[in-house]
Amino acid sequence: MNIDMINEAAIRIKGHARRTPMLTSPFVDEIAGRRVLLKCEALQHTGSFKFRGGWSMVSTLTPQQLKAGVIAFSSGNHAQGVAYAAKMHGAPATIVMPADAPKIKIENTRALGAKVVLYDRATEDRDEIGARLAGNELTLIKPYDEPLVIAGQGTTGLEIAEQAAELDVEKADVLVNCGGGGLTSGIALALEEKAPKMCVRPVEPVGFDDVARSLKAGEIKANEQLSGSICDAIITPQPGDITFPILKHLCGEGLVVPEEDCLRAMAVAFARLKVVLEPGGATALAAALYHGDKIQGDAVIAVATGGNVDAPMFQTALSKYGS
Amino acid sequence: MNIDMINEAAIRIKGHARRTPMLTSPFVDEIAGRRVLLKCEALQHTGSFKFRGGWSMVSTLTPQQLKAGVIAFSSGNHAQGVAYAAKMHGAPATIVMPADAPKIKIENTRALGAKVVLYDRATEDRDEIGARLAGNELTLIKPYDEPLVIAGQGTTGLEIAEQAAELDVEKADVLVNCGGGGLTSGIALALEEKAPKMCVRPVEPVGFDDVARSLKAGEIKANEQLSGSICDAIITPQPGDITFPILKHLCGEGLVVPEEDCLRAMAVAFARLKVVLEPGGATALAAALYHGDKIQGDAVIAVATGGNVDAPMFQTALSKYGS
Repeated sequence: MNIDMINEAAIRIKGHARRTPMLTSPFVDEIAGRRVLLKCEALQHTGSFKFRGGWSMVSTLTPQQLKAGVIAFSSGNHAQGVAYAAKMHGAPATIVMPADAPKIKIENTRALGAKVVLYDRATEDRDEIGARLAGNELTLIKPYDEPLVIAGQGTTGLEIAEQAAELDVEKADVLVNCGGGGLTSGIALALEEKAPKMCVRPVEPVGFDDVARSLKAGEIKANEQLSGSICDAIITPQPGDITFPILKHLCGEGLVVPEEDCLRAMAVAFARLKVVLEPGGATALAAALYHGDKIQGDAVIAVATGGNVDAPMFQTALSKYGS
Repeated sequence: MNIDMINEAAIRIKGHARRTPMLTSPFVDEIAGRRVLLKCEALQHTGSFKFRGGWSMVSTLTPQQLKAGVIAFSSGNHAQGVAYAAKMHGAPATIVMPADAPKIKIENTRALGAKVVLYDRATEDRDEIGARLAGNELTLIKPYDEPLVIAGQGTTGLEIAEQAAELDVEKADVLVNCGGGGLTSGIALALEEKAPKMCVRPVEPVGFDDVARSLKAGEIKANEQLSGSICDAIITPQPGDITFPILKHLCGEGLVVPEEDCLRAMAVAFARLKVVLEPGGATALAAALYHGDKIQGDAVIAVATGGNVDAPMFQTALSKYGS
């Protein structure tokens, strides 16, 4: 896993994935007490960065592999990213999703032409189900522990380096909402090469801080629970076998924020930046806004990873913090 | 008023105004029955295209003029655009706003350092108030009937031409939410030069269709009422003396959509594109989605002009049409 793979992924996704904007607002800066740059992957195709990794891997498959189809297991964003990338390659997709995923994610995945198989997040093991369904024919697109997927997510980091330089930001903490660590490790690898003064820091919700604890312990630690968070997009059992060594080598200390701060950050993104974020997509922004004492420097970069939120959850954020 | 002025404005705003994304979604295409490209000026600084025109004019002022300050009258988006452009130039700004403007617009304008003067939209004449306050010292930044402002808004058209070409769209109706016609005329001038197969068409809400009626009559017609619309951003007494001849020369027939369709379009933008639009910023998208029978061609471009909406109004849109 290295920068060359990310550069190659950037060539494959060019003209297919969107170069998402880096958003700023003087109002957001004032709340945070420093400059905030928001890399807005909620505006990526399918509403999250996951399309990058999906396209990165699907675009390397042979015609035979495409014809046989792909399979993925996902809480919803990887599902849509893979489904759309597969559809654009003319490949059938089977997606294994938790039954408690946001309705919009399940519906969108189906609407993108994928066959959706639901499972119970608390009692069933999605890896096992995925492996069984995959058999020998379907190509499994893992959500994070797959070099081609990490390389695709890492293209976000190439853009962050360029866009931060345009805004004269050379040194900053780069906060990334972190599940299995595919995006975080990809960005860390990209920035190690392109913007070495940046410090990538994973952000997780309270109660699901496996990455922060793993980094502290120097070895992989698991979450005690796997459901019950509004930040569904970034809840995974533990960091990946491929991603964790990268995180350990390149990342700063993990940040952990209360879920309520994610709802507050969603309301700020609505009012000040005009983007829709889901709770798990607003975790890094929440850290930038409300946990600045744990951040270094005059500027901070937060990655807004996704915006696939059901209307009632968004309305809750606005009702509580919208004025 | 010509393309050279728009090209010059593009040089002045480069690195200051944001090059906003052109968003797409297969789900949106499906509703519209054709490809939809959404030029998303809600993601512009201050949440609307108005920053372009504000910067375009303020950046031409002399040091003495900047020191004396600027004045503008606006329902809120021009207010914020001028206030922020003035602030970034170190110039004091006085903004005359209707008392019934969305709270977020009034608050943001004040927070951007401007002195805000409120007036009653139904009984007072904002032009008269503005002229009186301006006196001989302050530079008046008109919202649309000012060549330097039209030139700034027209830079949106330069970007539309480039971004549409990248997506292989050469010929399309370009739907623009239209108040006084500054943005619409600017885009029309830019596209006349850069993408002559495009047809710019103003879009307005039912009951406030002065531009559509003026185009039909071949002469300026006024609105009968000036308040009572949720599309506050695009309610003006009548097309401008400078903008109307341009609209008459270059634009296709105006489109008129019910306000309720704007709320529906806001919910679609939330779910499918992850952007926050205000009712008057969603009018063109509403026409693309729900009035396709009045549109020509395989693709349509809609300009999403602004996203400065109070939380309760946005929640209304989601409650009605969010699932």
